[in-house]
Amino acid sequence: MGQKPFNDTFLKACRREEVPYTPVWYMRQAGRYQPEYREIRKQYSFFEINDNPEVCAKVTRLPVEQLGVDAAILFADIMTPLKPIGVDVDIVPGKGPMIGNPIRTVADVNRLRAIAPQRDLPFIGDTIQLLREQLSVPLIGFAGAPFTLSSYLIEGGPSKDYHKTKGFMYAYPEEWQALMDKLADVTIDYLTYQIASGAQAVQVFDSWIGSVGADDYEAYIAPTMEKIFTALKATGVPTIYFGSGAAHLLPIWNHLPVDVLSIDWRIDIQAARALGIEKALQGNLDPSTLLAPWEFLEKKAKAILDQGMAQPGYIFNLGHGVFPEANVSQLQRLTKFIHDYTKK
Amino acid sequence: MGQKPFNDTFLKACRREEVPYTPVWYMRQAGRYQPEYREIRKQYSFFEINDNPEVCAKVTRLPVEQLGVDAAILFADIMTPLKPIGVDVDIVPGKGPMIGNPIRTVADVNRLRAIAPQRDLPFIGDTIQLLREQLSVPLIGFAGAPFTLSSYLIEGGPSKDYHKTKGFMYAYPEEWQALMDKLADVTIDYLTYQIASGAQAVQVFDSWIGSVGADDYEAYIAPTMEKIFTALKATGVPTIYFGSGAAHLLPIWNHLPVDVLSIDWRIDIQAARALGIEKALQGNLDPSTLLAPWEFLEKKAKAILDQGMAQPGYIFNLGHGVFPEANVSQLQRLTKFIHDYTKK
Repeated sequence: MGQKPFNDTFLKACRREEVPYTPVWYMRQAGRYQPEYREIRKQYSFFEINDNPEVCAKVTRLPVEQLGVDAAILFADIMTPLKPIGVDVDIVPGKGPMIGNPIRTVADVNRLRAIAPQRDLPFIGDTIQLLREQLSVPLIGFAGAPFTLSSYLIEGGPSKDYHKTKGFMYAYPEEWQALMDKLADVTIDYLTYQIASGAQAVQVFDSWIGSVGADDYEAYIAPTMEKIFTALKATGVPTIYFGSGAAHLLPIWNHLPVDVLSIDWRIDIQAARALGIEKALQGNLDPSTLLAPWEFLEKKAKAILDQGMAQPGYIFNLGHGVFPEANVSQLQRLTKFIHDYTKK
Repeated sequence: MGQKPFNDTFLKACRREEVPYTPVWYMRQAGRYQPEYREIRKQYSFFEINDNPEVCAKVTRLPVEQLGVDAAILFADIMTPLKPIGVDVDIVPGKGPMIGNPIRTVADVNRLRAIAPQRDLPFIGDTIQLLREQLSVPLIGFAGAPFTLSSYLIEGGPSKDYHKTKGFMYAYPEEWQALMDKLADVTIDYLTYQIASGAQAVQVFDSWIGSVGADDYEAYIAPTMEKIFTALKATGVPTIYFGSGAAHLLPIWNHLPVDVLSIDWRIDIQAARALGIEKALQGNLDPSTLLAPWEFLEKKAKAILDQGMAQPGYIFNLGHGVFPEANVSQLQRLTKFIHDYTKK
């Protein structure tokens, strides 16, 4: 077959096992910073790539081949499973996901359908199966977390402050819980389907959860996340929970039945460990440093790696996604550096 | 004159003196949530209000009269002092400040002029003098902090991630420092002028500083803030430093020569005190709770007040600005509750 031997370093790190070097992948590692991706986007819209297994697998593989990262992540959007449940969503370049029918009332919550991934998103399963034949690194599946999904659904698009979302949560706690329950089921069903199709780990993106105070998280969000990670635990694949600006929630996350916590750059690994976090950790380079000179980036990466390597269960990543202005050669060099510096 | 006796509760709390009750004011307490403000905005653009002392004083007084808060804050924008130094800025409704000539190179930094507030912004001094005759509560002056100002200057408008700003900071540390020096001088000169005109306290808004990691803050920002607060100390009026999502920076802020730290809702007062913060604190209600039913809002306010009253030096406020969807009667009730609940 001529295929490379399977590289399971990333999965081992998720399980806090000994690894030959620190594994690395990057959130949004397939994207507009790549000339090849921009070329493909001239032919296909975002959702056209998503719906076409051959193209979607190609885009997913691109950063693995180009950067040498230790994991692939399915190319999709957190909005992908919302289309079939009745959400009118479009990814608008330069703006993000825009919702044509935002949630304003309880009736809007009730209108959301359940998901049947095999029927609604067969292309996702096909893409994953194709990728499993093609890849020699683990494939990460993913979904958005209910709070972050609901923030788009309620605000109607990206927001800076989530007042409407939190206002709905405070004012209509029962309806909020109904929405959380519905989105939790979507997340569980969608991720279980990805895992059944071949995803070897899953990450739940709660990108905007950092806007919620700890007491509100405990009351309005934690039970839903508990339910999701408990359901996923039955699959046996490692689970990762990501949030940005969410250091204040780490003590609560530590009690969730999730394997890996993905942290941003506002708290360092040592400080997270000092909070009593024993789970595997992922992160925590500020993506803005990708615009810095190499010497600076190397210094930052080294400081993170020195902390990360101090105990098993560490995966190098950014604290948030790669962005269009980043450049490929910087990420290539960074990936090589991480491997070289941590090789035992 | 029939004027009310001067209410100095807010100033006493800034100085950590005993107060008869917990003082309260709200960031962006004059704004689009007020029908009267919306009416005025039909006649005048943002900067037309700002440039017209009679109208600007009226808008500044509106929330004091309407809500019964214990301080007024000059109606202006953090962009106000940037126009005279050569920045082409417009406040675009629904978007925020948009910059026609963003900073891209060192030449752009060098092009920024120094400010001569008396010549460039005489209407600010006139408004302050007028307000001092009209108000029976302290008048807070304000300015944007260099990092937050530079984020608009470099990104060209509001941003969610500040990659360009931080990229510039990492890649061109000398030019970054030149920009910080220039903006620090603007901030110092502008605030000193406000104080000379009659402002009785000043708040420095570093709204987006929470996007910076602690190590970068220490290296690239702290010396500038040290310089600003050291210069302001000479005036003798209380100084307040505000940032959002910035709990990770509190241990550094604690060493700045500033009197009051304004915190958002991601860290509570008890937790801030546990970090060793002895300065006066301001905050920390999540503004989204203004959309909650009164009973919920009251419970939140009570929990905050119980922590705030535990030692002298506490000012009730939101963790960020009032927003257009908030309503006047909820803020009136909240203000009354804070006064009643904390009265000794």
